[in-house]
Amino acid sequence: MLGEVRRAACVAVGDELLAGDYPDSNSGAIAVALAELGIVVDRFVVLGDRKGDLESAFYDLCARYQLVVCTGGIGPTLDDVTREAAAAAAGVPLERNEALLAALRESYMRRARAMPESNERQAWFPRGAQVMPNAVGTAPGFRVWIDGGTLCVLPGPPHEMQDMLRRELLPWLRSTCGQGQGIVRHSFYMLGLPESAFSDRAGDWMARGATPLMGVTAHTGILKVTLLGKGESVEGARAQVEARAAEVRARFAEELYSEDDPRPGAAVVRQLAERGATLAVAESCTGGLVAELLTDIAGASRVFEAGWVAYSNESKVSALGVDPSLIERHGAVSREVALALAQGAAERSGADFALSITGVAGPTGGTPEKPVGLVWFGLWQAGRLEAFEQRFPSVDRASIRRYAAHMALNLVRLASR
Amino acid sequence: MLGEVRRAACVAVGDELLAGDYPDSNSGAIAVALAELGIVVDRFVVLGDRKGDLESAFYDLCARYQLVVCTGGIGPTLDDVTREAAAAAAGVPLERNEALLAALRESYMRRARAMPESNERQAWFPRGAQVMPNAVGTAPGFRVWIDGGTLCVLPGPPHEMQDMLRRELLPWLRSTCGQGQGIVRHSFYMLGLPESAFSDRAGDWMARGATPLMGVTAHTGILKVTLLGKGESVEGARAQVEARAAEVRARFAEELYSEDDPRPGAAVVRQLAERGATLAVAESCTGGLVAELLTDIAGASRVFEAGWVAYSNESKVSALGVDPSLIERHGAVSREVALALAQGAAERSGADFALSITGVAGPTGGTPEKPVGLVWFGLWQAGRLEAFEQRFPSVDRASIRRYAAHMALNLVRLASR
Repeated sequence: MLGEVRRAACVAVGDELLAGDYPDSNSGAIAVALAELGIVVDRFVVLGDRKGDLESAFYDLCARYQLVVCTGGIGPTLDDVTREAAAAAAGVPLERNEALLAALRESYMRRARAMPESNERQAWFPRGAQVMPNAVGTAPGFRVWIDGGTLCVLPGPPHEMQDMLRRELLPWLRSTCGQGQGIVRHSFYMLGLPESAFSDRAGDWMARGATPLMGVTAHTGILKVTLLGKGESVEGARAQVEARAAEVRARFAEELYSEDDPRPGAAVVRQLAERGATLAVAESCTGGLVAELLTDIAGASRVFEAGWVAYSNESKVSALGVDPSLIERHGAVSREVALALAQGAAERSGADFALSITGVAGPTGGTPEKPVGLVWFGLWQAGRLEAFEQRFPSVDRASIRRYAAHMALNLVRLASR
Repeated sequence: MLGEVRRAACVAVGDELLAGDYPDSNSGAIAVALAELGIVVDRFVVLGDRKGDLESAFYDLCARYQLVVCTGGIGPTLDDVTREAAAAAAGVPLERNEALLAALRESYMRRARAMPESNERQAWFPRGAQVMPNAVGTAPGFRVWIDGGTLCVLPGPPHEMQDMLRRELLPWLRSTCGQGQGIVRHSFYMLGLPESAFSDRAGDWMARGATPLMGVTAHTGILKVTLLGKGESVEGARAQVEARAAEVRARFAEELYSEDDPRPGAAVVRQLAERGATLAVAESCTGGLVAELLTDIAGASRVFEAGWVAYSNESKVSALGVDPSLIERHGAVSREVALALAQGAAERSGADFALSITGVAGPTGGTPEKPVGLVWFGLWQAGRLEAFEQRFPSVDRASIRRYAAHMALNLVRLASR
C-alpha cells in the first residue's frame, strides 16, 4: 500500500541517454500524468545501463520517495539490466513467469514468426513483483517494493511507456493512493514577446513569494508562463490560480495563443477552421518547417491548402512565378521577393491567406547588409499584400528556422483573428 | 585544481523541465563534449527552481564527483535561484561583481536600450567564484568549489550553454585536468533494419562482457549502434573499437548511412552532392517533413531543387498534375497516386530524382483496407518510376510521419548510391 503519496522521482535508464543521442522525454510525460493525481515529481535522474548504479539509485530513491517510476532497460537485448538491478535493490532473486512466457510465445505465433531467443529475458521478474502487461510491445513492466518505496518499471519506447502508464500505472495509483489536494497548475502560451519584456510587464506577479507562483520560459519565440497554486484544498489553490489567470488574459490578450496546447500550429489550424478559411505557404529558408508544423496537427487538411518549398531561385520562378528580375535586383531575401512569393502561392492555391518566408538561415550566405538571421515575410490576404522584416538572433541554423516558422505562424494568427 | 577527473555529473535546473514542457537536452550535449576529454558523465539530475533542493544536490554530488556541471536558473527573473543555492552549498555569501555590472550596463547602452532592473541580479556570484563570461547572452556563468568537487554553472538556453561550454569550460578543463585515457567510443547510424533483426545478426557482439561493448537503440526507423572500448591506454581502446568497427561495416554495408552524423538528411544531401544530382519531393502525409529534414542541412541548396506539400486532393491535381480520376478510382493513398505525384514533381522541377509520399498518418481516416500507418512512396529516376508500400506501426501521427520521412530518405539514399 502506498498511502498518501505526495512526492515522487523518475529514473530514465539508457547509455544512449547519457551519450546525448536524445533527451529523456519519458520523465516529463510521467510527471505531467502524476500531477493530475496531485503527486509532485521533484527529481528526474538519468543513468546508464550499469546494474550497480541502478541498484544503488533505486535503493536510495525508494528510501526518500514513496514512489519511483523508472523507464527503460527492460528490452530483449543483453544491455538491458534494469530488471536485474531492481531485483538486487529489493533483495530478491529473478524468477521466470511461465504464464507470461507462454503469452509472449503465442503473440509471436499469431504473427507467424518465431520468437527470437533473446525475448525470453522479458519473462523474468523480481520475485514478488506485480507484472504490468504491455499491450503495444513485448516487454512487460512491473512494480516491486524496495523498503519504504514502490519502484514501478515501464518500457523505454515512449509509446509503450505511455500506453502502460494510462492502462496500468495510473489506475493502480488512483486505487491505492489518496486523492491529491491543494496543487493546481495552469499554463499560458504566448508569441511575439521577449522573455524580459514579459517579465517587466508581469511585475511582481513573478516574485518568489507570490501566490500563486509564476514561472516563465522562452523557446525560439514561444513563451510559456505557468501559474502554480498551492493551498489546503484543491478549491483554494484553484481560486488563487483563476484570479491571477483572469489578470494574465487581460494584460496579454494579444500575445496569448493557447492555454493548453503549446504548438502554435494548433492555434492557427483551430482559428482558421473556425473561420472556414484556408492557407497556403511558400517557404524558402524554413524549407518546409511551417508546412510541417501545420500538417502535424490532426485536422490540418481542412485549412492547409498547399505548400511550396521554393528553395532554389529557379523554383521560385518556375513554381511560383516570381519575376526573375526581382531576384536579380533585390536578391532572394528581400521585401519584393517575399511579396511575390506570397502572391504566387495565393494565385496558385486559391487559399484565403498566403504566407511566404525568405531569409538567411546560415551558417554561410550572410553579408553585412543581409546578415545571417535576416528574414522577410510576405502575407497575402483578400488581395492585399504586406511584408514584415525580422532579424533573429544568429544562434544556429535550426534555431533561426524555428524562430522564423513561429513568427510566420504568429503573423497568420494575428491576421486571421 | 581538479587533478585527474574521470567521472562527472550533470544537473539541469528548471520547473519547466520537471513540468514536462521540454526535455533536458543540455546534459547530453555536455556529456558528449566531456567524453572528448576522457571524462565520463554517468548521471544526469533534473531539479526544479527550489533553492533547498539545489543546495543539497550540489553538496551531495560534489562529494561524489570531482566535477558537476549545472545548467539553468541563472537568468534575470526571480524564479532563478541557482546562484543562491550554489553559494549556500559552498558556504559563502553572494557578492556583487562591480566590473561585470558595468559591462552589463554598457552592453545595453550599446544597443541603445535601458537595462531592465531585473538584470542586475546576473552580476551577483558566490564569493570566490570564477566568472565565465557569456558572449551571446546576458547571464554569465561561474565555477565554485564545494568541498571535494567543482560546480560549474552555465546558462540554460542551449545556444548560450554551448557557446560558454566551448569558449570557457572546455579550455579550462583541458588546462587543469589530466588527459583522458583508455576510453574510445564510436557510433554507427543505420536505416532499414528493425532492432531485433540487428540484434540477431550482431549475435554475441552484444554480450554484456563483450570487448568492446556494443549498445543499440532504435528511434522511428533509425538504429544507432555504439561501440565502447576501454583499456589501459587510448591506443588499446582504439584498437579494440577499430577491429570491431571494420566487422560492423562489412556486415551492415547496406544499412549503414553514417558514422558521425545521425541525420539521415545529411547522408542524402552529401551523397547527392557527390554525384552532382538534384532532388524534388512531393509530400502528402509527411506535410513538409522530408523537405524540412533535407533543408535543415547546411548546403542543401546544391541538391534540393523544389518541394511540394500537396496535402489536399485539389493541390495534388493543380500543383502536380495528378489525374483526378486516379484519385477517384484508387484513392489518394495508392500506388497509382504515389507514382503520379513523383512524376509530376520530376516534370515540374527537372530534378534527377523525384520522391513522393502519400499515406494515412491518422489518428482518423483509416479503413480496414487502408489502415492508419499505411504509406505509399513513389520514386522517379531517369524516366523510370517505382512504387513502395509500407505499413508503419500505428503509434501516433508524429511517429508515423517521422517513420515515413526516414524511409523516404532511405529510398533516395539507396537509389542514388
